[in-house]
Amino acid sequence: MTAYNAFYAQSGGVTPVINASAAGVIQTAALHPDQINKVYAGQDGILGALTETLIDTSLESTQDIEALKYTPSGAFGSCRYKLKGVDDFKAQYERLIDVFKAHDIRYFFYNGGGDSQDTTHKVSQVAEKMGYPITCVGIPKTIDNDLPFTDCSPGFGSVAKYVAVSILEASMDVASMSSSSTKVFVMEVMGRHAGWIAAASGLAADERELGPDIIIFPERVFDPEAFTSKVAEAVARKGHCAVVVSEGAKYSDGRFLADSGVKDAFGHAQLGGVAPVVCDLIKRTLNLKCHWAVCDYLQRAARHIGSKTDVEHAYALGKAAVELALNGQNAVMPTIKRLSNAPYKWTTSHVELKDVANVEEKMPSHYISDDGFFITPECREYLQPLILGEDYPSYSNGIPDYVVLKKNKVPRLLAHFEVE
Amino acid sequence: MTAYNAFYAQSGGVTPVINASAAGVIQTAALHPDQINKVYAGQDGILGALTETLIDTSLESTQDIEALKYTPSGAFGSCRYKLKGVDDFKAQYERLIDVFKAHDIRYFFYNGGGDSQDTTHKVSQVAEKMGYPITCVGIPKTIDNDLPFTDCSPGFGSVAKYVAVSILEASMDVASMSSSSTKVFVMEVMGRHAGWIAAASGLAADERELGPDIIIFPERVFDPEAFTSKVAEAVARKGHCAVVVSEGAKYSDGRFLADSGVKDAFGHAQLGGVAPVVCDLIKRTLNLKCHWAVCDYLQRAARHIGSKTDVEHAYALGKAAVELALNGQNAVMPTIKRLSNAPYKWTTSHVELKDVANVEEKMPSHYISDDGFFITPECREYLQPLILGEDYPSYSNGIPDYVVLKKNKVPRLLAHFEVE
Repeated sequence: MTAYNAFYAQSGGVTPVINASAAGVIQTAALHPDQINKVYAGQDGILGALTETLIDTSLESTQDIEALKYTPSGAFGSCRYKLKGVDDFKAQYERLIDVFKAHDIRYFFYNGGGDSQDTTHKVSQVAEKMGYPITCVGIPKTIDNDLPFTDCSPGFGSVAKYVAVSILEASMDVASMSSSSTKVFVMEVMGRHAGWIAAASGLAADERELGPDIIIFPERVFDPEAFTSKVAEAVARKGHCAVVVSEGAKYSDGRFLADSGVKDAFGHAQLGGVAPVVCDLIKRTLNLKCHWAVCDYLQRAARHIGSKTDVEHAYALGKAAVELALNGQNAVMPTIKRLSNAPYKWTTSHVELKDVANVEEKMPSHYISDDGFFITPECREYLQPLILGEDYPSYSNGIPDYVVLKKNKVPRLLAHFEVE
Repeated sequence: MTAYNAFYAQSGGVTPVINASAAGVIQTAALHPDQINKVYAGQDGILGALTETLIDTSLESTQDIEALKYTPSGAFGSCRYKLKGVDDFKAQYERLIDVFKAHDIRYFFYNGGGDSQDTTHKVSQVAEKMGYPITCVGIPKTIDNDLPFTDCSPGFGSVAKYVAVSILEASMDVASMSSSSTKVFVMEVMGRHAGWIAAASGLAADERELGPDIIIFPERVFDPEAFTSKVAEAVARKGHCAVVVSEGAKYSDGRFLADSGVKDAFGHAQLGGVAPVVCDLIKRTLNLKCHWAVCDYLQRAARHIGSKTDVEHAYALGKAAVELALNGQNAVMPTIKRLSNAPYKWTTSHVELKDVANVEEKMPSHYISDDGFFITPECREYLQPLILGEDYPSYSNGIPDYVVLKKNKVPRLLAHFEVE
């Protein structure tokens, strides 16, 4: 049997565990030298294929590849670049096939969200039309947890753990301060279209009344009066209040809270930030001292508090992708399948890419409480297993010793190609 | 020998490790039942003494007291309340002595920053004048690291570790995204008067060019042009840039950047936030895509990434406070004394409160680089040991199982006292 090379790339917003999927691909490929020769990683996602900027992962040490399991970010660089339609931009797809041909690449692994699964699907179609034999497998990744068919998406579990732990800690802080100082704490989390991340903060809530008292979801129209009366109620009852707000929170007219027309002294519209807007509202209407935090990249880079379950999912899906490809499965995506909640059991399965492409998995309506400001027990039951277990990186000098790969490039064989 | 009761309270902004000092006090006191009967904790700091709201720590389980070592926030409640001058508000001090007398309290332990050390000193003076025998010992605590005589203050090391780890992770994230998306990441940290916390982020910088490229200190006037040219240089050289900014950053006219006249759509001045101001500046002048985060309480509550060294300091100082008191040392504060940097060795010592009160320890000028935007090797040498070691809390269901104490109150014996 002839061994061919594989292409692997990372796409879209990075996560604490996308590199664990990379490790799964590279280490599993290495177990099958009769079928896979080298794994070439695209520098900066699919752009690396278009520009023929390929990283030879076989030149990295086995220790460094192992360290990918606990290194956040995209070790090979990611991209926000969506391949255009096949009919209008055929040259792009032909270029991909040219690069794959030139470098003897017969396996294509693309690690990303919905757009990336669409890209993987299109590449498989174009290759088939052009008669180039390549096996295309998408690997799910997104902190937004909005990919269909898979029980969850790698990356989400670790972000969920980060936001739950962070709001737990901050809620204890504000409780300590509330008798003579701050009464309300507001934490902004990601999730422009779906409230999965905001929902995960609810895992910190317990019978001791720690964690968030109120969660503001993008799925529900934000009602300032209903919200402030809930804040007032919590402060009256227990002396303080912790709020988690999704960056995607919207007014009834569809405007994002983060786009509330905030301007600086020069009249320039200011970059978003919904937490300060919510804090302002509380201050103006209730006259309570309020603190706020915006997690932004910290939440999706925080591998130091990664979920062991999430890391295992990510690795397993990278491994499954290679195994699917070696079994001749083309245009598929491996998925996580939940077998039971308590004890949590799962396995991998797979789905055809034609079914995945551009379908967005919404948070079920019954996962949000009737008043619109909290999660339901069903939601909690779904989320709980995803943050289980700790998987700490190793440290040196008090700092995680995350790996930075050498990223040796494969010599270019083709002429320059201008990426539009 | 007759055993008397002890009073312990927490004051000011809480930290990830102030409860470790509480554990040090309570567990050490328990070793000397011949001298210390019970430790009564003040509910919400000194307010608990004034209002005679005392928590009987002997009614907590030994496991719960042990769990204080890894529980953030102030387990007994803290306060932002500074006792007024002795001459003008004698009634306050007399009330304290009345409460101590009524509850047989002959040891006073106050765990806080500069103001709290001043309070402890005043209480010792008033007690002496009134002829009430009580031994007063301050226990240092502040994430601001601005207490004099002690090599460092408990709380700071864990916040330092949090900001260093967080900017390391976020810098890797922006590096992954920079080829086709975000080029600059800005993280805001605490420290209104001193740049210690901002400085600690520099520990994440290494020869691989991770961590912060630029640190904005409150000790240096913010020069927008010098700053943006440094951002532009970093982006030109390596494709991206990570910035850490202290909430205390100021313009040359003394205005805080956070008070840049930011107004919402209704013309209301918005709550601070210097990171969005810095991001706006970058966007306007350099037209680069920029992300920002504001850590706020998350940084000082993040016991999940606490520094083992810091936890050990905090516990040791609680223990030392009790031992000093039992040795008859009055009006003193235990301190951390550094013996060597590598390997890091330290011990406890102590200082008289009359020397501590209201002295603020500034960051030495030679800890900031000549261009004003980074730390020097001397600064790094000082900071490095303070973040050494990890000391993880235990977890249950994926969340740290921080303790919430029962806080049983000691029955009141006195009439109500109105706190001004």
